[in-house]
Amino acid sequence: MFIPAIKGQGTEEQQHKWLPLAYKMAIIGCYAQTELGHGSNVQGLETTATFDPTTDEFIMHSPTVTSTKWWPGGLGKASTHALVYARLITDKKDHGIHAFIAPIRSLEDHTPLPNVTVGDIGVKFGNGGYNTMDNGFLRFDHVRIPRENMLMRLATVTKDGKYVRSNKPRQLGYGAMVFVRQGIVIDASIYLSRAVTIAVRYSAVRRQFGNKDEPGELQVIQYRTQQSRLFPLLATAYAYRAVGFWMKSLYADVMKRLNDNDFSTLPEVHACTAGLKSITTSVTADGIEECRKLCGGHGFLCASGLPELYAAYVPACTYEGDNTILLLQVARFLLKTLSQVSKVRPVGTAAYLGNIKQLSTQNCKVSQGHDWLNTSVLLEAFEARSARQAAAVALRLAKGSGSEAEFQENTPELVESARAHCQLILVSKFIEQLQTGTPEGIRKQLEVLCYTYAFSQLIDNAGDFLATGYVTGNQIALAKEELKHMFDKIRPNAVALVDAFDHTDDYLGSALGRYDGDVYTHLYKGAFKESLNDTVVVDGYEEYLKPVLTQNLWAPHSKL
Amino acid sequence: MFIPAIKGQGTEEQQHKWLPLAYKMAIIGCYAQTELGHGSNVQGLETTATFDPTTDEFIMHSPTVTSTKWWPGGLGKASTHALVYARLITDKKDHGIHAFIAPIRSLEDHTPLPNVTVGDIGVKFGNGGYNTMDNGFLRFDHVRIPRENMLMRLATVTKDGKYVRSNKPRQLGYGAMVFVRQGIVIDASIYLSRAVTIAVRYSAVRRQFGNKDEPGELQVIQYRTQQSRLFPLLATAYAYRAVGFWMKSLYADVMKRLNDNDFSTLPEVHACTAGLKSITTSVTADGIEECRKLCGGHGFLCASGLPELYAAYVPACTYEGDNTILLLQVARFLLKTLSQVSKVRPVGTAAYLGNIKQLSTQNCKVSQGHDWLNTSVLLEAFEARSARQAAAVALRLAKGSGSEAEFQENTPELVESARAHCQLILVSKFIEQLQTGTPEGIRKQLEVLCYTYAFSQLIDNAGDFLATGYVTGNQIALAKEELKHMFDKIRPNAVALVDAFDHTDDYLGSALGRYDGDVYTHLYKGAFKESLNDTVVVDGYEEYLKPVLTQNLWAPHSKL
Repeated sequence: MFIPAIKGQGTEEQQHKWLPLAYKMAIIGCYAQTELGHGSNVQGLETTATFDPTTDEFIMHSPTVTSTKWWPGGLGKASTHALVYARLITDKKDHGIHAFIAPIRSLEDHTPLPNVTVGDIGVKFGNGGYNTMDNGFLRFDHVRIPRENMLMRLATVTKDGKYVRSNKPRQLGYGAMVFVRQGIVIDASIYLSRAVTIAVRYSAVRRQFGNKDEPGELQVIQYRTQQSRLFPLLATAYAYRAVGFWMKSLYADVMKRLNDNDFSTLPEVHACTAGLKSITTSVTADGIEECRKLCGGHGFLCASGLPELYAAYVPACTYEGDNTILLLQVARFLLKTLSQVSKVRPVGTAAYLGNIKQLSTQNCKVSQGHDWLNTSVLLEAFEARSARQAAAVALRLAKGSGSEAEFQENTPELVESARAHCQLILVSKFIEQLQTGTPEGIRKQLEVLCYTYAFSQLIDNAGDFLATGYVTGNQIALAKEELKHMFDKIRPNAVALVDAFDHTDDYLGSALGRYDGDVYTHLYKGAFKESLNDTVVVDGYEEYLKPVLTQNLWAPHSKL
Repeated sequence: MFIPAIKGQGTEEQQHKWLPLAYKMAIIGCYAQTELGHGSNVQGLETTATFDPTTDEFIMHSPTVTSTKWWPGGLGKASTHALVYARLITDKKDHGIHAFIAPIRSLEDHTPLPNVTVGDIGVKFGNGGYNTMDNGFLRFDHVRIPRENMLMRLATVTKDGKYVRSNKPRQLGYGAMVFVRQGIVIDASIYLSRAVTIAVRYSAVRRQFGNKDEPGELQVIQYRTQQSRLFPLLATAYAYRAVGFWMKSLYADVMKRLNDNDFSTLPEVHACTAGLKSITTSVTADGIEECRKLCGGHGFLCASGLPELYAAYVPACTYEGDNTILLLQVARFLLKTLSQVSKVRPVGTAAYLGNIKQLSTQNCKVSQGHDWLNTSVLLEAFEARSARQAAAVALRLAKGSGSEAEFQENTPELVESARAHCQLILVSKFIEQLQTGTPEGIRKQLEVLCYTYAFSQLIDNAGDFLATGYVTGNQIALAKEELKHMFDKIRPNAVALVDAFDHTDDYLGSALGRYDGDVYTHLYKGAFKESLNDTVVVDGYEEYLKPVLTQNLWAPHSKL
């Protein structure tokens, strides 16, 4: 984030000066935005950068404990420079948050510079995961930096202290945002596919119980209870992959438009990518943990590879936009789109809202199970449900005065409405990707996964679908049966479908998820690498255990 | 488990011999049941204990890698003896699984005994949590133990190798099971209340964003999105406490009946306690993690106390019965109860099924929000939903041939039905506890929590309630409004309601959940205890960082 931020907010001169240094590791930079008391609300940051025209410098200062920079990765022990977000103050006037490059450690001996307090914020979730990152804290006590260290692409402070906004369109930053979010969705697919690979392979190896009809124990992957938790996640990993690829084309389109100064699609693109970031990261984090649980007791061992996968992934729900706040942004977009729908034709992923009248009146026509095996039927179900939820909450709000308090009062419903919209996008883009020149054999497999994904989303959110009146309980029951048929189609290919992700054993780092399935031998062998097993008799035996074992020191009825 | 198992399965003579040694720590025992390849299915264990009448000994043996004992707590480095579950073989006949006391380490120098291989299984989820426990592995290579080391309360092997079952009723073991599960439910309440205490207190301290109408940032506890995730968990912690207390009386009742050789209530008690163990541990594990997420970025720091709380708690979903398998046991009980309902009047927590005809035909009568504020109305909703779900799956199965394969095919619906039954028990027991002599002021607060719990369960499972046809979408919407009114009543007392759990700062171990609310100072001070901050310049700077910073070793265009 240090380098993209300089690219986005620095003048060409500043980019020319700082980027080569950062690329060459002649300096190590970190992105110092969040503070101990301030995360998502950037406008609430407290660090100040006060211009002193007498010396042509900014005075960087941390006025309170809560203004301490907190969390920046690489800050704790490594960084020599920090890109500090601070309130710009000139002549006692607060111009809001701007970015400044502050040297924080000596380039001679790496010691913190005078009046800079910097260190590591401590241990984080998991044994590995993010603990290899030196997330840090940083305080300034009236530290002076040259005026030219303020990134001045969007606004300038002159030598005599005048604040001047540039006329560069602020929307240019949106391109980078779409790019980053596309990467996050692809990452979600990769992380989820890693967890699913481990859980599917182990479920094919692990045997438990059996039935009278067959000898021996059954592979746990044969059990419907296992399939109904595992196969939807397998399908989800494929869905996110499809959507991630689609977002690549979305990014290309956005960049083309930005170059032509066409900002018309930005609100829709912003809402779509915010929502997809939110949904895919939340589902992936929970999905990794679900895969760990699906591996039973052994999933709790780090040797399964799953505890660390979870701990390393789950921060994605918080960084680059807290997932709940992002959904509220989507909801605001939906409300605005609906309010203008008679005048402005909705575009892109919101286009279906143009059809709201029909979606609000026609109900689902499914009468037999196989009626569900139709992508148009499925798409319309997700469109109708999303349109109806959005319309319902819009109607409630329209009855009020339009105050922020009323918006707040309805945020649970708004979040649900945003989630419905995003689930529609995911289903629809997965369906679209099926139709883009995939060879028939692969397309057939993907179609099974696509139906699995759509049906499981429909069933998991049955309360919403039913409450909008679009489907009936019987139609949901039919979808449940169709979903089981899909499980039967996935089952014989499940291992091949995860092998297709092409993760190496080394990359998975899991005794349970080995390609060769030789799980138990490697769990057993692996235990001998545990350092507690370096000695036959545990350290501390002589001092602590032996006296107890031989002298009954803890005997409850002893007189000691 | 070592001591209760000896109590339950040892003869009086064996209890007299082994229990004093175990209590006095003159020996350290572990409960060695699970194997590398075998967990929930105890009948699948592979370790053998073959009787040799020529020496009056059992030969303990681990014939395969998968027969390696794996997971027993205390086995890895501490135990001197293991209570080993193994297949008893006399004269080439397999009598199934029995328990044996096997010495595994020398009482002189703690080294493993000859032909015993024992060690620690390695690192587990979390930085702390269960990593303080030496879960271990154990293999025997034809290790001989005296015949008298077989626990012989329920079955005996005579000196000449005859296998004789005792006539002690096997149901006596159920008392211990109810006792253990009651403890698990109370534990769930305690763990969840710890997480909720941290999240509620921090939510009252943390401020973020604001609205035009008020100055400064708002406490995040004011936000409906935060309340709608946090307050139901607060109510759940209270619900589990109430149910845990009720289980104490259930245990007393069971013990009284067992002493009178009255086993009539056991199937119902078994199903009820199995289901409550399953639901409360699953919800608590997810609830702790949800509380961590509700603390935003700082929840990811171990200083929040939440990562380790989760890692330490989540094994409860697996031990003492895997949660999915337990729900299937509940489902089997429900099916059996329904099949006999015309002949045998269901008792206890299943009594409502006696009323199934009425519950299947009369629908919810709520027409305005406040109609929901009636515990009878709520109870009937949960009863009707559970009865209808159970009846629906029973009907599907009744149409078939009664094969195990058909049962398997319907396990997803069976699990849902079991969950519905358990949610009813939880709601009904919380309501009952309100009515048991609680002072009026406290009762009023508990009533708000009870409604909060019931409404949030109703809404979270709206899909089920709607699909059974008992409620309408509009009735669900009315419940959502009532739930918000409950949030308004909880909000001013939320901190007091968690203070009432009376957890000390020391016990919580959380900078975010401090009683005094001085969160930021203590997060900041706490960071200085991180060992990375013991040195100002990080170890490795001279060897690794400095050469890069000063010689541009990694420069992309460098010729190096």
